[in-house]
Amino acid sequence: MVTFRKAIANDLDKIVQMLADDELGKTRERYETPLPDSYLKAFEAIDKDPNNELIVACLGEEIVGVEQITFTPYLTHQGSWRATIEGVRTASSERGKGLGSQLILWAVERAKERGCHIVQLTTDKKRPDALRFYERLGFIATHEGLKMKL
Amino acid sequence: MVTFRKAIANDLDKIVQMLADDELGKTRERYETPLPDSYLKAFEAIDKDPNNELIVACLGEEIVGVEQITFTPYLTHQGSWRATIEGVRTASSERGKGLGSQLILWAVERAKERGCHIVQLTTDKKRPDALRFYERLGFIATHEGLKMKL
Repeated sequence: MVTFRKAIANDLDKIVQMLADDELGKTRERYETPLPDSYLKAFEAIDKDPNNELIVACLGEEIVGVEQITFTPYLTHQGSWRATIEGVRTASSERGKGLGSQLILWAVERAKERGCHIVQLTTDKKRPDALRFYERLGFIATHEGLKMKL
Repeated sequence: MVTFRKAIANDLDKIVQMLADDELGKTRERYETPLPDSYLKAFEAIDKDPNNELIVACLGEEIVGVEQITFTPYLTHQGSWRATIEGVRTASSERGKGLGSQLILWAVERAKERGCHIVQLTTDKKRPDALRFYERLGFIATHEGLKMKL
């Protein structure tokens, strides 16, 4: 059975391995030993921010999935909180077994617990399968997602 | 000359007025006297969060624009911070004068100051003019933006 918990520093190696083991991730992550310091610093910033949660999915002791949930208070929509899901990955050994859905549905429940009115995410247009996956879960692609690299 | 500063509680009435004075905003905001308490609570949550900044653009004493910038540490992209821009509005009297561009470019500079590697936003597909506006400023619509209302 899959369990979910907040990530701890010791999980970081496995998490970065999953982030890098991905069609798009492999071109932009650096899974090395030791891990680049930037990952540790980001982990510490996430860990100490009460509005960010890095969540791992586990099968027994083994980490098989990860996602980050950011909770943001907004003035729009009459001053409502939103949850933003980012960095969703599953271990390649577990793909196609429903783990991705479990990760997202866990985040949706967590968003409800935190009093959010909207759950949102963006997905790269180079991942058409991911778009269909999120639509099947009930997300609606009402928005364009724009990025600018600095 | 337009100046920019962090919003204070006294600005809230004018900010909500601008959020409501908009094709999509008028259907989902409640600009009333007194303001619904949910706006005040959201303002307080934003104001006390060091990773959220509610910014107003002013002409003299008058508030003519607003935007919210959220700074988020992520593990992805080798552990980099991102800035997310949301709730961008300009006073109807000032539209078409370049104020929107100034707001966005101010946020981009602020994102650089905060060490962000990506600036991102989503724009409703019902606003094709907004999409072109952001593309002219250098944003690239690489992603689909999905939402789920709870």
